[in-house]
Amino acid sequence: MFDASTYRDRRAALIKALGLRGERSGLVVLVGNGESPMNYTDNAYPFHQDSSFRYFFGHSKPGLAAAMDLGSGESVLYGDDLSMDDIVWTGPEPTMAELAEAAGCAFRHRSSLATDSREAPAILFLPPYRDETRRELARLLGVSIEAVDGKVSLPLIRAAIELREIKDALEVAEIEVAVATTVAMHRAALILTRPGMRESDIAARVTEIALADGGGLSFPVIATTKGATLHNHRHDRSLAAGSLFLLDAGAESLKGYAGDLTTTFPVGRRFDEKQRAIYEIVLAMGQAAIPAIGPGKPFMAAHDAAAKAAVTGLSSLGLMRGDPDEAVAKGAHALFFPHGLGHMLGLDVHDMENYGEDWVGYDGAGRSKEFGRKSLRLAKALKAGMVHTVEPGLYFIPELIAAWKSEGRFAEHIAFEKIEAWMGVGGVRNEEDWLVTPSGARRLGPSFDKSTAAIEAARSSGGIHG
Amino acid sequence: MFDASTYRDRRAALIKALGLRGERSGLVVLVGNGESPMNYTDNAYPFHQDSSFRYFFGHSKPGLAAAMDLGSGESVLYGDDLSMDDIVWTGPEPTMAELAEAAGCAFRHRSSLATDSREAPAILFLPPYRDETRRELARLLGVSIEAVDGKVSLPLIRAAIELREIKDALEVAEIEVAVATTVAMHRAALILTRPGMRESDIAARVTEIALADGGGLSFPVIATTKGATLHNHRHDRSLAAGSLFLLDAGAESLKGYAGDLTTTFPVGRRFDEKQRAIYEIVLAMGQAAIPAIGPGKPFMAAHDAAAKAAVTGLSSLGLMRGDPDEAVAKGAHALFFPHGLGHMLGLDVHDMENYGEDWVGYDGAGRSKEFGRKSLRLAKALKAGMVHTVEPGLYFIPELIAAWKSEGRFAEHIAFEKIEAWMGVGGVRNEEDWLVTPSGARRLGPSFDKSTAAIEAARSSGGIHG
Repeated sequence: MFDASTYRDRRAALIKALGLRGERSGLVVLVGNGESPMNYTDNAYPFHQDSSFRYFFGHSKPGLAAAMDLGSGESVLYGDDLSMDDIVWTGPEPTMAELAEAAGCAFRHRSSLATDSREAPAILFLPPYRDETRRELARLLGVSIEAVDGKVSLPLIRAAIELREIKDALEVAEIEVAVATTVAMHRAALILTRPGMRESDIAARVTEIALADGGGLSFPVIATTKGATLHNHRHDRSLAAGSLFLLDAGAESLKGYAGDLTTTFPVGRRFDEKQRAIYEIVLAMGQAAIPAIGPGKPFMAAHDAAAKAAVTGLSSLGLMRGDPDEAVAKGAHALFFPHGLGHMLGLDVHDMENYGEDWVGYDGAGRSKEFGRKSLRLAKALKAGMVHTVEPGLYFIPELIAAWKSEGRFAEHIAFEKIEAWMGVGGVRNEEDWLVTPSGARRLGPSFDKSTAAIEAARSSGGIHG
Repeated sequence: MFDASTYRDRRAALIKALGLRGERSGLVVLVGNGESPMNYTDNAYPFHQDSSFRYFFGHSKPGLAAAMDLGSGESVLYGDDLSMDDIVWTGPEPTMAELAEAAGCAFRHRSSLATDSREAPAILFLPPYRDETRRELARLLGVSIEAVDGKVSLPLIRAAIELREIKDALEVAEIEVAVATTVAMHRAALILTRPGMRESDIAARVTEIALADGGGLSFPVIATTKGATLHNHRHDRSLAAGSLFLLDAGAESLKGYAGDLTTTFPVGRRFDEKQRAIYEIVLAMGQAAIPAIGPGKPFMAAHDAAAKAAVTGLSSLGLMRGDPDEAVAKGAHALFFPHGLGHMLGLDVHDMENYGEDWVGYDGAGRSKEFGRKSLRLAKALKAGMVHTVEPGLYFIPELIAAWKSEGRFAEHIAFEKIEAWMGVGGVRNEEDWLVTPSGARRLGPSFDKSTAAIEAARSSGGIHG
């Protein structure tokens, strides 16, 4: 169970890690998220706490802040108890004293953060991503809002990554809870999708499952028959037999940990021949990647293994040609596989993305500028306890194919003249969530057979015709 | 149909209204909303466009801005076409030329807003509610972010209210679409709620219905057995027969117009005697208010009529006493009815709330500071074409009752000694959406019988026991 000792231990570990990096005085300030206004101040989106705040202090409640004093090792939670007027509208809430006890720290009025910050020899903070937070940091630092991003603490970023990237057993169990809900969302879609429905019907149903479990969605649902658009958040199309349907959706556990799966299946009962061929290459890409995952192994190698499987498979269909290693080295596969194989997963669906992928996924080692490879979010050597996605995909993106074809890009590897016949496949992606173990890797969550046979059996079980 | 002429006409009317207020030069700047980051920049909440932007330019798409030149009468939409990299991720989108044509105006690069603003003799803008918007306005104005709110244009606020508060037939039709989906959400909850379910099950189901219709929710769902907490957004309780369930939820139409209804019903099959008595007083409050609604009639009078019906009803139960008019004049009813009777409804669920309720609901005429009455969002004289809610409610709020009882507040009107027996009723609210017509008022949306007989019939139709 997550309790006061969990958060105390995490903070002590952070302070220790910062000390090893030479940061032994100053105040680590975590500004928790406020409400996020939709169309006016009091009409807010569902509250989502800042993940760093949640990791070190636990509470998911708007308007809090916290600080850790590197000199004394003391932590303080900043917030205010409710007034009677508040209670009429929101009901009674835990007091600050109770919140502080649960987080294993002291508490002070919210306004004291400003005074405490003024007295601190230095303020260390993590990269903000909302201007409300930047604005408060600007006031605490006494600088303009434009200057805030330039003053983030790299030692703090690196120390926080070092802790958060390794998931302990409690965290892995939470992620498995999120993945279990996520599997239920995908199984429901797999059973209920019917020609004639709208994409929004499926998006709505999987959202319902995530909300009913209490944690909500970990990111906006992609539910589309246009899978070739990688981040398609429109849900306005009707579903026709003959198309593929791509669902990329995940639930969040009540403690805030994310699940993230993608499933692709026919809107009708069965894959057609071309859909099946591409789908099976995508499964083969995942199978090729798994042996490359384990402690000490760079995730870049797993990405390349998947890319090579893509080239090999597409070559067998006549869509690519030439030496697969050479094609991958040049980046020719990226026409069909333009994104990365995976990303860290934790309290954020792209875990710690606000810290900067160059640190989270590359340890600052520099990143490719090549189309496709530049979108790989995780490349560095893995460690046991890391959790990440494995999400190979193949796409026929009309605008991209037209552009490369017109310039004859990688024509030695790409059979542009044969692609036209395959455009109708659109996009296929299969995404799973994996834990790096001391000996290799383990898929998280309940079993979910993605073979064409299992997918077609599930599509038939719902009594679908077509 | 909303088309280019709709938006052109609205802008011309605004420019004319500003001219009548003496504003004949300068640039009216509307900064459209951007994405709203949840836990890092690229993990955003579902996009919601700024309602003013949508009203005058129509488009619901992140990152746009627009301006109307009061001198020339010309309007410009600011934005950029997609790059190839964008298209890979988001798919093709309408071009700026197409967007501008649909809005009936010119278009320029997004960055041109800054240059055009620098050349303008004055910049007029509406009250912002996100710091991202404040930050851009600060740059356009050349002031600090803290100074922005103080520079909003009151003539622009008043001219925009004058237009937006009167809904034309197209807008009323859109609101009826939203209310129809909203009624479907409430009917579904009324049929499916069962003892043993969690509040989140109902919240999830009504969300699904709103999402499937494509427009989503107009505000966060209240789905609670603790109706005495007015804005209760927790959904973590289990439902037990014997309690009342309160659902306050609404859908948004695809054009962005809001529905907003509240329904209260027993978790079991029937109201108990006390629940029924309070519920029927709430219905009577609504019935008392309706005759007070019509052109030229101040909404404050409708509020007071509902409050008086509350006092009369509660007096018949022995919970209040003394002259009802006197009790209402003093504000004694507010112990049980602590909020206002209604608010404007349109593109925002509290329409134009970011403009300031003192202007939207009071025409700047000043507002009561009295507990209860101060929460009335709309008080001014009504006009045909206004759309507003009618939402009487009665609550037994433990913390509020304890506080008033201890100070003997309005003891001449409140039978504190009898309240304890009624605490279990919790909260009851009934909310409907109404249009002010030339002759009075018309309830919007499909028929929805809220009588105890109809509610109990619906509860039985689902095969519920209890």
